[in-house]
Amino acid sequence: MPSTSLNSVRTEIEDSLSFFVKGKAEKLNNIDEYLQPISKSLSEYILAGGKRFRPVFAYLGFLGAGGAADPKIARACAALELVHVCALIHDDLMDGSDTRRNRQSIHREFQNYHDEAKYFGSSENYGASVAILLGDLSLVWSDELLFSSGIATEQLNQALPIFYDMREELMAGQYLDVLESVIGKSSKSRSSKIAQLKSGKYSIERPLQFGAALSGANPKLLDDFSKFGLALGEAFQLRDDLLGIFGEPNVTGKPSGDDIREGKRTLLIALTLERCNEPERRLLEKSLGEKTLDNSAIAEIQELISRCGAKGECERLIAELFDQSMENLEKSDCIDEIKALLAEMAKAATQREK
Amino acid sequence: MPSTSLNSVRTEIEDSLSFFVKGKAEKLNNIDEYLQPISKSLSEYILAGGKRFRPVFAYLGFLGAGGAADPKIARACAALELVHVCALIHDDLMDGSDTRRNRQSIHREFQNYHDEAKYFGSSENYGASVAILLGDLSLVWSDELLFSSGIATEQLNQALPIFYDMREELMAGQYLDVLESVIGKSSKSRSSKIAQLKSGKYSIERPLQFGAALSGANPKLLDDFSKFGLALGEAFQLRDDLLGIFGEPNVTGKPSGDDIREGKRTLLIALTLERCNEPERRLLEKSLGEKTLDNSAIAEIQELISRCGAKGECERLIAELFDQSMENLEKSDCIDEIKALLAEMAKAATQREK
Repeated sequence: MPSTSLNSVRTEIEDSLSFFVKGKAEKLNNIDEYLQPISKSLSEYILAGGKRFRPVFAYLGFLGAGGAADPKIARACAALELVHVCALIHDDLMDGSDTRRNRQSIHREFQNYHDEAKYFGSSENYGASVAILLGDLSLVWSDELLFSSGIATEQLNQALPIFYDMREELMAGQYLDVLESVIGKSSKSRSSKIAQLKSGKYSIERPLQFGAALSGANPKLLDDFSKFGLALGEAFQLRDDLLGIFGEPNVTGKPSGDDIREGKRTLLIALTLERCNEPERRLLEKSLGEKTLDNSAIAEIQELISRCGAKGECERLIAELFDQSMENLEKSDCIDEIKALLAEMAKAATQREK
Repeated sequence: MPSTSLNSVRTEIEDSLSFFVKGKAEKLNNIDEYLQPISKSLSEYILAGGKRFRPVFAYLGFLGAGGAADPKIARACAALELVHVCALIHDDLMDGSDTRRNRQSIHREFQNYHDEAKYFGSSENYGASVAILLGDLSLVWSDELLFSSGIATEQLNQALPIFYDMREELMAGQYLDVLESVIGKSSKSRSSKIAQLKSGKYSIERPLQFGAALSGANPKLLDDFSKFGLALGEAFQLRDDLLGIFGEPNVTGKPSGDDIREGKRTLLIALTLERCNEPERRLLEKSLGEKTLDNSAIAEIQELISRCGAKGECERLIAELFDQSMENLEKSDCIDEIKALLAEMAKAATQREK
């Protein structure tokens, strides 16, 4: 097998996405010229970047199970990114987030478009409607890309059950996340469960297994990838929790402390509530979901999370889970050259700044 | 071939949906017990009825092309209903509609659930989030049902391009519909184009072709079904326009005049604006999209639409398009026994009261 690098994998994924999405945008424009603003916006959104974690993990799962690099597989793996784009567009709408991938979220973009065009009716409703439809479109494109990837029917049949589980676990995790923020109670076990669904499974374990299944991997390797992926996914989510509160806005592309304003009941928040005193607890509870918090209020919460030791505990957990995932990777049947790339990805997933 | 009736076709579709959806709901409950309210609500919503036009047309397309009745095909055709459920859930959210299929729309149901459970945060946001996620779930279930239907790979490959087009045309039509209501201008040609995408193609032509493709129909029959389906679909949409304004609330399951409050710029509205005088035009324009219109205001608009002749013109167009579709059906290569069932469906689609 020719030597593979993360860069070459990323390039293949990017090329697959770009080719597919451009074709789809053109097709929309041919249906009706009035579709141009949405075809342009959705394709730019998809191609504007993002970490492509899921397709890259999927491709590495395929290569790690002994598959040989193949543009058809890159296309099949790129399909996972389109599921993810749907999740991002709909998630930002549900959370009322203004920014994503260093640009406006879709609902805000079209809300502004409505305002500028002086359209009738509510610009907020218009933005929300466009975001709902563009998320839907990305979701239907995802399975079209998978099925038109050119992979063999047998490969498809092996990978499909995992694809289905992945999408379902994503929706389930998203719902439980929404529920958690309205129930207004934090519990370490609930936060962990949601993190496991949303990140452990959806972001890492399932993509790896999806790729491995495409190469007809045996159950032992699928299980190895599960062990590696779940531990790493939990660490990935904890890093997300930290970035959602301590992230640098000009690096993450999202305002600092956004998770507080959105009332996200992450494991980091559960750890904080466990450790802080009663007045601190009341302050934090009052701040969660408070859309209008200013920067000094956010700074106070950041300070609280650090001071009580929850931030440090979170970092310790990340390091521990990372080590555990590395051990699992080492013991796995994954081929050695790909183990090195997976270790690189694991570092990127847990030590990232965005 | 054993004799087929619309009832037997409907029963097969219903059984397929029911079996699939119950399995999916159970799977969600196994992921997490907190998912029970949404698995219950979504499965009840799907199984609560609906006309099942799209799966029935698809199955008749299959039989009309010479296919023999087969539970695998019923399952594949039932997948179209799940696409439609996504469209309904998301459409009601975008339009702010309270009722559907004689029950609450999903976003209202969960908004009320939030209120009753005294959850934190905005109950409206919560309802909207659940509706977004349940629509997404129904959409991903649709292709899972199609792919797990058990049909042969060759059949799948023949039908998939049509399935993709259908979903894309649906999203495109929905977007153009939203756009039309905010642009605040009515045009007969735009209204017709949107009606063609949303109903002509999505509701009838594509389902028929999808079914025909499953039985490996030749291009001539696909074209025949297109001619029958497009004319019928336009008539179907015009009936929808009339029901959206003149429908009996206790039959349609939606309040009378709902399309006026939602500001829908249908062909019926375009015909009215073309025929009425200036003060009437101003009244209608002012009323479109006005959520708070009371019943007497709605009655005034109904009266206006009748008086200016737009209602009668709409009925004439429906009759004309119906006749045209019957002529096309007669000339088609569809097998005779199924022609009779398609004619029955055509009557149901254009002479319905809900």
